[in-house]
Amino acid sequence: MKIGFIGLGNMGSAMARNLTKAGHTLTVYNRTRSRADCLAKEGAAVAETPGHAAAKAEIVITMLADDHALEEVMFSPDGIAGGLPAGGLHVGMSTISVALSRRLAEAHRERKQHYISAPVFGRPEAAAAAKLFVVAAGDQEQIERASALFSVLGQKMFITGKDPELANVVKLTGNFLITTVLEGLAESFALARKSGVEPAKLLEILTGSPFGAPIYQTYGSMIAAGKFEPVGFKLPLGLKDNRLLLEAAEEAAVPMPMASLVRDRFIAAIAQGLGDADWSAIALLAMRSAGIEQKA
Amino acid sequence: MKIGFIGLGNMGSAMARNLTKAGHTLTVYNRTRSRADCLAKEGAAVAETPGHAAAKAEIVITMLADDHALEEVMFSPDGIAGGLPAGGLHVGMSTISVALSRRLAEAHRERKQHYISAPVFGRPEAAAAAKLFVVAAGDQEQIERASALFSVLGQKMFITGKDPELANVVKLTGNFLITTVLEGLAESFALARKSGVEPAKLLEILTGSPFGAPIYQTYGSMIAAGKFEPVGFKLPLGLKDNRLLLEAAEEAAVPMPMASLVRDRFIAAIAQGLGDADWSAIALLAMRSAGIEQKA
Amino acid sequence: MKIGFIGLGNMGSAMARNLTKAGHTLTVYNRTRSRADCLAKEGAAVAETPGHAAAKAEIVITMLADDHALEEVMFSPDGIAGGLPAGGLHVGMSTISVALSRRLAEAHRERKQHYISAPVFGRPEAAAAAKLFVVAAGDQEQIERASALFSVLGQKMFITGKDPELANVVKLTGNFLITTVLEGLAESFALARKSGVEPAKLLEILTGSPFGAPIYQTYGSMIAAGKFEPVGFKLPLGLKDNRLLLEAAEEAAVPMPMASLVRDRFIAAIAQGLGDADWSAIALLAMRSAGIEQKA
Amino acid sequence: MKIGFIGLGNMGSAMARNLTKAGHTLTVYNRTRSRADCLAKEGAAVAETPGHAAAKAEIVITMLADDHALEEVMFSPDGIAGGLPAGGLHVGMSTISVALSRRLAEAHRERKQHYISAPVFGRPEAAAAAKLFVVAAGDQEQIERASALFSVLGQKMFITGKDPELANVVKLTGNFLITTVLEGLAESFALARKSGVEPAKLLEILTGSPFGAPIYQTYGSMIAAGKFEPVGFKLPLGLKDNRLLLEAAEEAAVPMPMASLVRDRFIAAIAQGLGDADWSAIALLAMRSAGIEQKA
Repeated sequence: MKIGFIGLGNMGSAMARNLTKAGHTLTVYNRTRSRADCLAKEGAAVAETPGHAAAKAEIVITMLADDHALEEVMFSPDGIAGGLPAGGLHVGMSTISVALSRRLAEAHRERKQHYISAPVFGRPEAAAAAKLFVVAAGDQEQIERASALFSVLGQKMFITGKDPELANVVKLTGNFLITTVLEGLAESFALARKSGVEPAKLLEILTGSPFGAPIYQTYGSMIAAGKFEPVGFKLPLGLKDNRLLLEAAEEAAVPMPMASLVRDRFIAAIAQGLGDADWSAIALLAMRSAGIEQKA
Repeated sequence: MKIGFIGLGNMGSAMARNLTKAGHTLTVYNRTRSRADCLAKEGAAVAETPGHAAAKAEIVITMLADDHALEEVMFSPDGIAGGLPAGGLHVGMSTISVALSRRLAEAHRERKQHYISAPVFGRPEAAAAAKLFVVAAGDQEQIERASALFSVLGQKMFITGKDPELANVVKLTGNFLITTVLEGLAESFALARKSGVEPAKLLEILTGSPFGAPIYQTYGSMIAAGKFEPVGFKLPLGLKDNRLLLEAAEEAAVPMPMASLVRDRFIAAIAQGLGDADWSAIALLAMRSAGIEQKA
Repeated sequence: MKIGFIGLGNMGSAMARNLTKAGHTLTVYNRTRSRADCLAKEGAAVAETPGHAAAKAEIVITMLADDHALEEVMFSPDGIAGGLPAGGLHVGMSTISVALSRRLAEAHRERKQHYISAPVFGRPEAAAAAKLFVVAAGDQEQIERASALFSVLGQKMFITGKDPELANVVKLTGNFLITTVLEGLAESFALARKSGVEPAKLLEILTGSPFGAPIYQTYGSMIAAGKFEPVGFKLPLGLKDNRLLLEAAEEAAVPMPMASLVRDRFIAAIAQGLGDADWSAIALLAMRSAGIEQKA
Repeated sequence: MKIGFIGLGNMGSAMARNLTKAGHTLTVYNRTRSRADCLAKEGAAVAETPGHAAAKAEIVITMLADDHALEEVMFSPDGIAGGLPAGGLHVGMSTISVALSRRLAEAHRERKQHYISAPVFGRPEAAAAAKLFVVAAGDQEQIERASALFSVLGQKMFITGKDPELANVVKLTGNFLITTVLEGLAESFALARKSGVEPAKLLEILTGSPFGAPIYQTYGSMIAAGKFEPVGFKLPLGLKDNRLLLEAAEEAAVPMPMASLVRDRFIAAIAQGLGDADWSAIALLAMRSAGIEQKA
């Protein structure tokens, strides 16, 4: 299939590579050109503008850092909105706000284009291994149109409903749940350390019992070892998603005290110099609060 | 083996029954006699006092509601402390405070008796199905002495360390993590409902992705359906364990803001008439806060 | 002095009236024309656009509901930016974001106009009685130029610094402190009621002892009586100011957990139908949480 | 009047001294004898046991650190319960739990003795200057009996009700409100500092406007200057009172999220080495969280 792919960060590059490997014809665009050139070596064409990447595609995929980046790529004079042919499909896979997702759906509809939302769960390693979980929402027919791509990119696809923004609500909710796991583990290991329980032992118990989910394994290992690497998801991105969640929650009039608590952790972490760390490094704050010394 | 078993609530009855079935000789004691009589029909002897239940046993197991109940059973004139022969072993399986566990260890040592701590993870259904997770701590030799019983009662045993109270720290930490899952799910489903995401759909996604742990399945189903039954673990018991956790955390000087947040939920739930509900009913509070009407 | 006055809500109308009474020549503008006509009866001229109100003024004062309203009045084609003569002074008295205050200063500077920030503390009653507290920041000379007006409007003026946005930081901080008083009193009276302490008695003690500040008197009376009237400051405005505070705090990387807590209260209050109540009505939530029945 | 006075810490010593100066006959007791000897130089008799101090007194006053200290002084074999003559009055001025106050009332009633509760607001400086606020509760006649003493010790007396423990509820509520002021100011000054507002300027505005209560002056000065001296009220005592408050609130089923938040601050402060600081030093935590360096 002819695919435009816009946004070649850690996640996007891995995803684009998998699509190329699977035999699809990609035209890629990235603001920083060098990352697009890497993909070119693997057979992708490189577009000069987002609009060009979209112009000949049946489907254009966007995988960008935030609302701002996606708005620019979509609405600038050389953007997707102008470039994508009528009948073309935009698959938004970035983690963006519920409000922007709604606006995109509207803007594409006016131009006789299609839009579905399909954010993913998984860190860059999972993207590389094609093990992502894809959460899609939008017109059933359009989701089917893209489903061959989803099966290249991930291990499983879920359909959330007809309104594209529903997938964004679910994605933000999922990221929120991950942060509650992070903070929960952070407090737990701080208590364990100061009470004389060996962190590795606690980890073994948690992951060998009802908490035996991959997420407890992944983050529990990092927190138990006090090693917040590799940096799979930067802490300020965690704050960004938290902000989007709280905006969606405010719009829906839903108080989320646990999300507020995590928000303060992220801000404190940035204030204390952890702006380049993995988001699991909020565990350092729980330790510092408890008077446990540990290097960042 | 000759076993004394004290405390025949929902958990204890199921456990005692499994031990009897496995061929052990039980002498049981329960404050409310009728529950002991049920066990008698299955072959257990009934003791008049905790001390009698301990008197002829190699191992006496306690499975009681709280510190207060265990203190009484242990230190009253007819209690275990006086009844258990020198060299006998007390296996404390209740969820009690770290401080009491320390006191019990000391008291048994003075009397040349043994004490290990072995609280469990699992609801009454798991106890009945012998699927508990046993978290043991104490003298290695004594843990081995009791391990045949643990394999009758549960699916897995973990050893936490040499000081019995370490197992209690881990148990309280585990229950704390469950409450963070409860509150996290509560806020998530409140947002989902008000944003138009179908609860059953969100549940399917969460349990089919990185959150695929039994605990998300168990509690996610209850919260998604708004049905807080069966009452496997009463809400005030959740508050009790939270209190024990916060005491242990205060003693170790570890601030646990998420535990504080959950504490307030439990208290509010009790104030609003949910004192007989399952602890997952704190999800009702997140819904009420968000203006979602739902019956208790 | 020739004054343009834009924004005639409860606060603005009272302030404009006082300026007229003091002999100043006012040209007023309000989006809803009828409120301007009321002032016309007291001698003010009515302008058709914000730009007209600013055109002949030495000083134009804005007193609007939020960032959005002020941006429109400032930057629309008929706005202040275009209307105010070079050398003219814009005194921004609304409670707006730190970021917008910074932008306004910049925009006026480019047009050789002046801008100072001068938000106020005080409810509509205080505005009518000319008892406001004015917190000013900006160029010293310009503050002096406006100081005659400040002494008509309020009982006291404070100068915060040379950058206009500093006054906005202080204003937001002040409103935040008021919300901590509200929530603190809310929880206190909930405890008092359920413990058998008479609310009026508690109020008497608090206001007769080290808490004897007007603010404890004002809000303590409302909360003790459970009467959240008159509606001096609508609850959603409280949420708005909280949002501005949290934005400023996030920009400065300052975690403010108490502000987060109050935020959740405001959102819950709106979700529960208190969107038209005075902001002190968050006290109803503390009562509901505690199972105390009381009508809104 | 013949008075027994038990508990000669910073507060108690100052109070006993004032009573002696006013011409009352004091018999004092303190666990650490040396502090009693200081009072002896000013004319007080020194008792060997609490019971002796109570034996010849019409009124025995207790001013102790916590529940534990008061229970010992009251119920030990040489304690007040045994020593105080029938008809004698015990005035409990310590900040203790609501539950203990109830128990004391009961215990004295059984022995035909009287008990009223009369905790105070004010730091040691206020005790020395006889400027305390006394919050009394209990039998009207007994309060009158002690009122001459209260007017020696403080500037004002409030009567809360007939049940002695009501005064303890009010005292704990007052201390809670002080901690909300502390934390509110802490967060405010952290934001001010990082936003470029001069702390002294913010203090001037807050204390010159609706926040003009003594408490904002006292603690605002300390926090604005970053000097947490003199140590008028040690941080662990703040945690203790918070604990008593939360116990009373739990008993009454009142969730108090702001109190929970402050609790975590106190625990973190102790974990970070501030166990000997004034309780206002929790402001250091808000600063550290925000990445502001400041010495303890």
